[in-house]
Amino acid sequence: MLPLTTHLRPALAAGCVLLLTTLATASGPEEPVFPDRDNTVRGDAGAGVYRVPYHRPTVDEVRAVIERVFAFVDHASPTRVIDETTGAEITDRTRVIESAIADRGDGGAFNPWQYTMGVTHAGMLRAAAVTGDARYSGFVRRHVQFIHDWLPYFQKQAELVAIEPGAEHRGHGIRHNSFRGAIATESLDDSGAMGAALIKARFAGVGPDNLALIEHLADWVANKQFRLEDGCWARRRPQPVSLWADDHYMSVPFMAQMTRLSGDRKYIDDAARHVLRTAPRLFNARTQLYTHGWNANQPYNPQFYWGRANGWVAMSIVELLDVMPADHPDRAAILDLFQQHLQALASLQSPRGLWRNLLDKADSFEDSSCTAMFVYAIAHAINEGWISPVSYGSVAQVGWNGLAMMVTPEGRIESTCVGTTFASDNVYYYSRPQPSDANHSIGPTLMAGAEMIRLLQNPKVEIRYQWRTHHYIPR
Amino acid sequence: MLPLTTHLRPALAAGCVLLLTTLATASGPEEPVFPDRDNTVRGDAGAGVYRVPYHRPTVDEVRAVIERVFAFVDHASPTRVIDETTGAEITDRTRVIESAIADRGDGGAFNPWQYTMGVTHAGMLRAAAVTGDARYSGFVRRHVQFIHDWLPYFQKQAELVAIEPGAEHRGHGIRHNSFRGAIATESLDDSGAMGAALIKARFAGVGPDNLALIEHLADWVANKQFRLEDGCWARRRPQPVSLWADDHYMSVPFMAQMTRLSGDRKYIDDAARHVLRTAPRLFNARTQLYTHGWNANQPYNPQFYWGRANGWVAMSIVELLDVMPADHPDRAAILDLFQQHLQALASLQSPRGLWRNLLDKADSFEDSSCTAMFVYAIAHAINEGWISPVSYGSVAQVGWNGLAMMVTPEGRIESTCVGTTFASDNVYYYSRPQPSDANHSIGPTLMAGAEMIRLLQNPKVEIRYQWRTHHYIPR
Amino acid sequence: MLPLTTHLRPALAAGCVLLLTTLATASGPEEPVFPDRDNTVRGDAGAGVYRVPYHRPTVDEVRAVIERVFAFVDHASPTRVIDETTGAEITDRTRVIESAIADRGDGGAFNPWQYTMGVTHAGMLRAAAVTGDARYSGFVRRHVQFIHDWLPYFQKQAELVAIEPGAEHRGHGIRHNSFRGAIATESLDDSGAMGAALIKARFAGVGPDNLALIEHLADWVANKQFRLEDGCWARRRPQPVSLWADDHYMSVPFMAQMTRLSGDRKYIDDAARHVLRTAPRLFNARTQLYTHGWNANQPYNPQFYWGRANGWVAMSIVELLDVMPADHPDRAAILDLFQQHLQALASLQSPRGLWRNLLDKADSFEDSSCTAMFVYAIAHAINEGWISPVSYGSVAQVGWNGLAMMVTPEGRIESTCVGTTFASDNVYYYSRPQPSDANHSIGPTLMAGAEMIRLLQNPKVEIRYQWRTHHYIPR
Repeated sequence: MLPLTTHLRPALAAGCVLLLTTLATASGPEEPVFPDRDNTVRGDAGAGVYRVPYHRPTVDEVRAVIERVFAFVDHASPTRVIDETTGAEITDRTRVIESAIADRGDGGAFNPWQYTMGVTHAGMLRAAAVTGDARYSGFVRRHVQFIHDWLPYFQKQAELVAIEPGAEHRGHGIRHNSFRGAIATESLDDSGAMGAALIKARFAGVGPDNLALIEHLADWVANKQFRLEDGCWARRRPQPVSLWADDHYMSVPFMAQMTRLSGDRKYIDDAARHVLRTAPRLFNARTQLYTHGWNANQPYNPQFYWGRANGWVAMSIVELLDVMPADHPDRAAILDLFQQHLQALASLQSPRGLWRNLLDKADSFEDSSCTAMFVYAIAHAINEGWISPVSYGSVAQVGWNGLAMMVTPEGRIESTCVGTTFASDNVYYYSRPQPSDANHSIGPTLMAGAEMIRLLQNPKVEIRYQWRTHHYIPR
Repeated sequence: MLPLTTHLRPALAAGCVLLLTTLATASGPEEPVFPDRDNTVRGDAGAGVYRVPYHRPTVDEVRAVIERVFAFVDHASPTRVIDETTGAEITDRTRVIESAIADRGDGGAFNPWQYTMGVTHAGMLRAAAVTGDARYSGFVRRHVQFIHDWLPYFQKQAELVAIEPGAEHRGHGIRHNSFRGAIATESLDDSGAMGAALIKARFAGVGPDNLALIEHLADWVANKQFRLEDGCWARRRPQPVSLWADDHYMSVPFMAQMTRLSGDRKYIDDAARHVLRTAPRLFNARTQLYTHGWNANQPYNPQFYWGRANGWVAMSIVELLDVMPADHPDRAAILDLFQQHLQALASLQSPRGLWRNLLDKADSFEDSSCTAMFVYAIAHAINEGWISPVSYGSVAQVGWNGLAMMVTPEGRIESTCVGTTFASDNVYYYSRPQPSDANHSIGPTLMAGAEMIRLLQNPKVEIRYQWRTHHYIPR
Repeated sequence: MLPLTTHLRPALAAGCVLLLTTLATASGPEEPVFPDRDNTVRGDAGAGVYRVPYHRPTVDEVRAVIERVFAFVDHASPTRVIDETTGAEITDRTRVIESAIADRGDGGAFNPWQYTMGVTHAGMLRAAAVTGDARYSGFVRRHVQFIHDWLPYFQKQAELVAIEPGAEHRGHGIRHNSFRGAIATESLDDSGAMGAALIKARFAGVGPDNLALIEHLADWVANKQFRLEDGCWARRRPQPVSLWADDHYMSVPFMAQMTRLSGDRKYIDDAARHVLRTAPRLFNARTQLYTHGWNANQPYNPQFYWGRANGWVAMSIVELLDVMPADHPDRAAILDLFQQHLQALASLQSPRGLWRNLLDKADSFEDSSCTAMFVYAIAHAINEGWISPVSYGSVAQVGWNGLAMMVTPEGRIESTCVGTTFASDNVYYYSRPQPSDANHSIGPTLMAGAEMIRLLQNPKVEIRYQWRTHHYIPR
């Protein structure tokens, strides 16, 4: 199917009126023109020629988009155990068998224990809090209950079939225990995102108590994960000593939540230190972007400004600021870093309101996942008063519109970069596929939608449509 | 009509021989190839494959282009008053009626009092001075006489129909007194460009005396316009305290001319201060470009390098240097700023010799207005000896060729960005339309053509065609 | 022929399996998709969608590519003298006639004395050293013998037909003595690359002794070539005092070889000084790229990051480091400069593993010559231990794959930028043609292939295919 048609579909489904006029643009195939519905002047010669809806969305429109996403993921991620050999459901938790696995659902993409599911839970909880719609928290409750019920079963299974250490590192094709990350925890990917989600569920009163599991995961992150000498969380791949920008999200929000849970500031101090000490290595002060990773064994690491890596960092800082006391000594420096980052991002938004997989490359595909992350981070920061609505309100707005255009009527989120390792060449990043079952956009889109609803309802912000654009004015 | 055809048309009209060979380029649809007529080697394998005429234009060719522009605008901007309700001409200035308006001419785009008309007058006067062709000054004489004759009429009309304050700010759709900007002056847009043009006309001995009007406008700019505490001219929109790079042109040239008119250096000092004090906020020392605007109510303003904003600044500095005494203490700093700006611009010229609407975005459309402004500023600066012809001669030359390609046989200037506000997102700038009646390129194209004629005739510059390119060597 | 077909041809010839699936990419026409043969997971949803082979090439594959190039150039560059008027071969060296010229071979592009032939010889000698294949050294032997045999003949011819001084500067269309550069030496282009090659041939024991000729050329570079006051080699064109980044290769490797030949360190000191003293003028510390040239007669020279100019510098530094003693006082500073340069280059590789003619412009065509130069410089530097394989191994690998895709079955190297002067506008660089007989890629491709073979066999580097990319790990 052609990209044109693909992109038209959700727009039509969203009730957009499309002009049949098309553009032969400098940067690609012909694309539909979206008239600006907020412009009430008929035949206005000064009206923009948009490749994305440029209007202010209504709260109902935003709500409808995240409800579609909810419906898709709710259906796609069953919480049940099956016999891998027969596909038959297993309900008897007393008889542990080797071939039992969690049903991975739609396209096999939805294991109940994985970092993307942690992000999805965080998104569901945020949507629930903002909209008051119990379906979102219901999703989390179903999953948390499932984990609670079935983790002991898979722990026993691990006694039958020993989990090979390093399995996670070897990637695709390895036979997994469905709860391997929770049982044979060996990485930040295993622990951070799910750990943070479990604490958030607990505070929201969603699902049964999983405190022991939370403490097990926190012990991994706080005490066992490999670190640089200065305390930054690090990895042993691809090189013996490497930093990944992604690891911000796999550590910082969880540690922030641990301070919230335990009252002990050491966790949040650890998180703040990670943010500030990785910056000289990962944040390029000239471009104001994060390079995907850093290897210790050479000077002058090349810079690959992978969209999602930047998204992980932006979301992590937001989650850290959410919990960090106003008087924390690192707060001002972290906020400054965040503001610098946003300044660069605003200038890199595509003509369709999206951000690219390589943020600084106009010939790189547009990625929904980083777009959702940035929209969330920006809208949330405005709502919390950390940045002014002045410049960022309209960036978030048109970013949301671009993202919404990628959500199909079934609630899938197109143009999502698949899981991506820290590689060493542009070609790898340019060439990542965007399969329809990539699930990295789901949680961030729920979060982005929730914050957009808050922003549109924010009493401290006046949104003026004037001179054919939207000005977000602080009241 | 396809862009290809559109672009072919003026080239054909200009007598260009086109190869039928076409290019499938990385950046767009197939475009015609222009053989380099200055390359006399038949079948030269080293000949460039150009999407713009690369040859040195003749003085006659340049003259022909600006004559086409003249013919169009001379016809399109009548100086007459009509009854808006009937369209009938009004000639009786003794009976003031509410529905009298100045005929806005072609597409309603040519009100006799607006800043773009001020630029057009400046261009006409420059073309007259360089070519000696009285038609250009005739245009200005007709308009200045019209203003002189009809301003009192519209002042009386304003007593009948009170002009609402803030009308200009609310933009499109407001019922205007045709001379509102001169009567109920409330902004730099109202005053600066027309004010500068009226003084230039006076020095050129063109039209009747308008000294009282000039003084009224100068009083607005010098004493009434909103300013920052440090004296920079500023606006109250879109945010309570905003700077627009455009305001360089709406203030600096007028103030420079006021020093010329009055002999009082305070005006030029004010202008110089504006250029130097806005620079830390608007000129990015890293990219060496001007961001469109700046809002006081946040740190780290995002950067949108809108082409025309940069054009306004470049033209303003040129007009300031024209009048500034050689020993003015700010001259060196302003010249340095200008040279840095040009260094960046040279590296951002498109494959067709044009500059883009967002200067640093290759996927942004090419804009004729900023191109004309840069060609004028560069060629003028070479002619005045402020910059070396070395690097900039050929930049101006191919810039002119690209611009000339946009001038239709009827003298319209295609690919001109429409009137554009200071917005907060890339999408807005990417999506500006280029309607065929956008009039921002007219004055700058006349100026660019006039300076190109001077440059081609400049006795201090030797233009060598060598190794398939043009070298401008100082004699 | 369409680009698609052109690019498919060599890939097919190289035995690549191509999917019929095509991509409508943001940056150009539909292009074939190359499945990653190193990815053994069938139907892997995470597999990259590549526009270049992404696999690790085998030594045999690399060897086959450079053998094709060898076969083409060996055939295309005859070593024989003909009567220009009749085309008949001349074998009698005792009777000097005015119309005798060296047969320029294929398309007239292969004069035996020209700087590109010097690079070709360097490439042949490198290929011979790495592969042990005597055909490569045989090519050099044939040419060196030809020079040795025929130079006296053309020296006598120069007595019959005086060589006009400045002929080289006036370019195309001048009647050349086939050995003009060796006889009436007047530039670095005449002397440096051939001089370096003659010394390398001598050390390799290839061909007869040409010591007197080497000394004549060295005397030109060391003592007669125009220089800046601080000693940097410079040119008198296009402006009275200009620096060309290309001149690194036309001087530095030759001088380095002269120290090797003579044992006198003064030559290498001179070369090191040139590299370090030109850097503040040519190397932009912000972009970490070399601008093509610099003119003394103005501040703020515009920046044109021409690919091949950057390639010349990278190759020159590599050749200098090859010869420079480990304790040379300038070694660390030069290595640092080189590493900064590579850091920038890694981020500018195109989606097909190539670099563009204007390195920082995604809308500029991909150039094989600079790609070959960078692949050589990077792979060689890894092999010599000057840079870590960590980031650069995979850059070199996919760069090689992109370059190999440009080599036709006949051994021509497509998409090679033609000879290019130091010009003053983007349009010139954007518009350079890539005729099929451009010969600037030949030597660099031979060198790149030779170093890739060494890299693939390097015992100090482990190449791991993991997570769908290649990690070069130091052992």
